[in-house]
Amino acid sequence: MRNINLNPPSGTRDFLPEELVRRNNIFKIIKNIYESFGFQPLETPAFERLEVLAGKYGEEGEKLIYKILKRGDQAEAGESDLALRYDLTIPLARIVAKYGRGLPSIFKRYQIGPVWRADRPGKGRFREFYQCDVDIAGNTTILADAEIIFVLSSALKALGIQKFTIKLNSRKVLAGLMEYYGIKDVLRGKVLTVLDKMDKIGLGGVEEEIKKTGLSDDAINMLITEIGNPESEKTIKERLAGSSSGSEGLKEVDEIMAMLKPILEEESKIIFSPFLARGLDYYTGPIFEILAEGASSSIASGGRYDNLVEIFSNKKVPVCGGSLGVERIILALEKKEGEMSNLPCSDALVSVWDESFRVDALKLMADLIRSGVKTEIYLGSGNISKQLRFASDKGISYLIICGPDEKEKNIATLKNLKTGEQENIPVKDLADRVRKKLA
Amino acid sequence: MRNINLNPPSGTRDFLPEELVRRNNIFKIIKNIYESFGFQPLETPAFERLEVLAGKYGEEGEKLIYKILKRGDQAEAGESDLALRYDLTIPLARIVAKYGRGLPSIFKRYQIGPVWRADRPGKGRFREFYQCDVDIAGNTTILADAEIIFVLSSALKALGIQKFTIKLNSRKVLAGLMEYYGIKDVLRGKVLTVLDKMDKIGLGGVEEEIKKTGLSDDAINMLITEIGNPESEKTIKERLAGSSSGSEGLKEVDEIMAMLKPILEEESKIIFSPFLARGLDYYTGPIFEILAEGASSSIASGGRYDNLVEIFSNKKVPVCGGSLGVERIILALEKKEGEMSNLPCSDALVSVWDESFRVDALKLMADLIRSGVKTEIYLGSGNISKQLRFASDKGISYLIICGPDEKEKNIATLKNLKTGEQENIPVKDLADRVRKKLA
Repeated sequence: MRNINLNPPSGTRDFLPEELVRRNNIFKIIKNIYESFGFQPLETPAFERLEVLAGKYGEEGEKLIYKILKRGDQAEAGESDLALRYDLTIPLARIVAKYGRGLPSIFKRYQIGPVWRADRPGKGRFREFYQCDVDIAGNTTILADAEIIFVLSSALKALGIQKFTIKLNSRKVLAGLMEYYGIKDVLRGKVLTVLDKMDKIGLGGVEEEIKKTGLSDDAINMLITEIGNPESEKTIKERLAGSSSGSEGLKEVDEIMAMLKPILEEESKIIFSPFLARGLDYYTGPIFEILAEGASSSIASGGRYDNLVEIFSNKKVPVCGGSLGVERIILALEKKEGEMSNLPCSDALVSVWDESFRVDALKLMADLIRSGVKTEIYLGSGNISKQLRFASDKGISYLIICGPDEKEKNIATLKNLKTGEQENIPVKDLADRVRKKLA
Repeated sequence: MRNINLNPPSGTRDFLPEELVRRNNIFKIIKNIYESFGFQPLETPAFERLEVLAGKYGEEGEKLIYKILKRGDQAEAGESDLALRYDLTIPLARIVAKYGRGLPSIFKRYQIGPVWRADRPGKGRFREFYQCDVDIAGNTTILADAEIIFVLSSALKALGIQKFTIKLNSRKVLAGLMEYYGIKDVLRGKVLTVLDKMDKIGLGGVEEEIKKTGLSDDAINMLITEIGNPESEKTIKERLAGSSSGSEGLKEVDEIMAMLKPILEEESKIIFSPFLARGLDYYTGPIFEILAEGASSSIASGGRYDNLVEIFSNKKVPVCGGSLGVERIILALEKKEGEMSNLPCSDALVSVWDESFRVDALKLMADLIRSGVKTEIYLGSGNISKQLRFASDKGISYLIICGPDEKEKNIATLKNLKTGEQENIPVKDLADRVRKKLA
C-alpha cells in the first residue's frame, strides 16, 4: 500500500453487488411507474457548460457546484469551463430550449441518474446521489400539476410506502400573503428561502433568520404568529380572496385537491400548507412536498416553473415536475425490513475434473448458456468436494460433472444440490434437460 | 436567448427518448449475457481521488483526465483533488484492494457506465462514453482468460454481430520476442505503445515512430520485416520456444485457442497475433482484441493484469478482464438496420370532456394505472377529435371517453383506435376489461 486513500471520495459510495442489485430494483420499480404514466426517458451528460449552471441555484447552491478544470495548456490557469450537473431540472430546461419543436408538444420525460453537490455529507445526504425526476413541459393545465403529484404518490406506493401526507401550496398564495404583509418584492426571495428552512430550524430559527432580512417588525410579527397558529387557515383563505394573485393561487390549490382526493388511497392525505415555500427561486405556481408518516423531511417534492426555460430561449415553455428523494427512501426502506439478498444466482456450475477436462467443461457451459441457463464454470480443477461446496455456498442449484467415466460414455452427471438427486444425461440432451428442470 | 451555448458540452451527447430506449435495450442485452455467466454488478463513483487515477494511463492518457477543482475557499488556488473516472478498470483495482476479504474469493464483476476522457471528439469517439466491463479477480487459471473472451463473444452474438475475428496474444510472447530482438527492458514499454498504433498508423507509421524510441537499427529491421510478413508465424513460434517467457506465452495462447475453438460458432475465428500489443502498461499475460468482419478497429478487447491491484494494496490479486467497445457497436448496429422506434407507448388515453370532467377522468386513469394498464390522461379538454388525433399520433390503442351521457349512466365509452370499434362499459368494470383486452 503506497499511502493511497482507498475510500471512495468523501460523500460518494461504492455499491457492491448486493446493495447495487437492491438499489437497481428500486429504480426499476420507479421507472415502471413513470413509464406506465407515459413518461419517456431522457439522459443528459454528467457535466454541463459552466454558464448553463451558473447563477441558477442561489448563493448557497452555487458554492456546492463541482467545477471541472480546463484541459491541456489551459489547465494551469486553474480555470473551469464545465461543471457536474447539480440537478436534472436545469439540464431539462436546456433540452427543452434547444430541441424545442423536435420534442412532442407536450413533453413528458423522466430522468433517473446521479447528480453531484459538494454538500457536507451526513445521514442520507451524499455528494453523489440519484435523482428520479418526472416533468411535463409544454402544458399549463392544472391537470398536469395533479398528474405529477399522482405519479410520485403512485411510485411511493409501489415502493411500499403506504402512509404519507402531501403538503400543497402555490407560489401565488405566498405572493398574496406577502402582498398582505406588505413585504416588498425585493425581499420576497429572501423570505421564501428562510421559510423553506422551517423543517430544519423550526419556528424559532425562522424568526431569528427572518429578522436579518430587513423586514419590518410588524410584518415579522404577523408572519410568525400566523405560521405558528394552526387555526389560521380560514383567516388566510379569506385574506387571499382579496388579492388577485392570492385568489388565483387558492384556486389552483383547491382544484388540485379536488382532483387528488378521490384517487388517493385512504392512508394518504393532502393538506393546504400556506407557508410551504420550496427554496428554489424558479417556482411560479403550485408547489408540494410529500412527507412519510412520522418523518419530518420530505420524500418527494416539486412544483411548477413556467419561466425557467425562458432563461435559455426566446420561447416561454411552461413546465411542472417533481422528484423523489430516492436516497432517503432507500434508507427508510432498509430500516423497514431486513430483506433477503437479491443477488442474481447462476443456475448451474460446470465442474472441471482436471486440467485436461477444461475444454470439455467449457463446451458444456457453452451449450447451457446458449440454452438460456445461467451457468458458471469452476475456475480451477480437481477436488470435486471443494467444487461442490463452492456451488452450495453460492446457492447454485445444479452441479454438472464430466469426468473420465462420463466422457467415455458421452454423458454428464447432473447433481441437484437441493435434493442430492443425481442422474446421468447424454451430453447432447443436457442443456435442454436442465432448462426444462428450471422452467 | 442570452448567448448561452445550448449544445451539450463538446464530445458529450443528449440522449432523447427514442435513441435512449434503443441504447438501453443494448445495455440490457449485454447485462443479461454478463449475468448469465455469473458476473455481478458493481457501481463506483463518477469521480475518484486524483491520486487514485494519476500515473496510471501513461503520458498521453494523463492529459485526457478531467480534473475537478477543489471547492469552497480552496477553489481559488485552481488546484484539483478529484478526477472523473477514465475507465472502469482502475476503480475495480481500488475496490479489490479496499474490500479484499469482503468480496468473494473469485470476484466476477461487471460494470456498465460512463467514463470521461478529454480526447479529440470524432466519429465514434466521445468525451463521455459508456464502457461495459467484465473482470474476474482472484483467479490465475487460463480458463478465466478463456471465459472472458467467451462472455464478450456471446454478448456480441446476442447483439447480432455474428462474424468476427479474435486476435490473441500474450504479453509474455511479446517479452520473448523483445528478448530475441535484443530490446532492452527500458525500451519495451515504448515499443509496445508504438506497436499498439498499428491499426491507426499502419506499418509505415509504426516504422517511423519506432525509430524515435532509440532502438538499434538491427532490431528495428527485424521487427518491421517480421510484422510485415504474414508467413512468419512458424518462425516466431520456433523462436519463442527458446525463451522461457516466450514459451510460457505461447502455451497460454495455445491453451486458450484449444478451449475457444470448439465453442466459437463457425462464422467466428480466433488467430494468434504475435505483434498485438494493447497499449496499456498494466497487462501481464494473455491479451486480445475482437474485430468485426470488415472493420479495422476492435469492438472488444482485454487481457490479464496480475500486478495492478498491487499498486493499491500489499496483496497481489490476479485479474483478467475485457470490455466491449459499445459506442462503436451501437454505431455499427445503427448502420445495419433502419430499425423501428422502440419508444414505450401507453395503452390507453383517457380523454377530458371539459374542465368539469377532469376529476372523473383522473379517477378513470387511476383505476387503469392500478390495474397495470399504461395510461395517459389528455392534458387539456374539449375537442374530442383533437384528443383522438393526439392518441393516434402517439400510437395509443384505446381512447376512453367519459362525457355527460356516459357520466349519467355511470359508464365509459371505450374506443379501439386500431379497429374503430367502440363499446360502452360500466365504469367499475373498465380497468379490468381493458387489461384483459391487452393481455
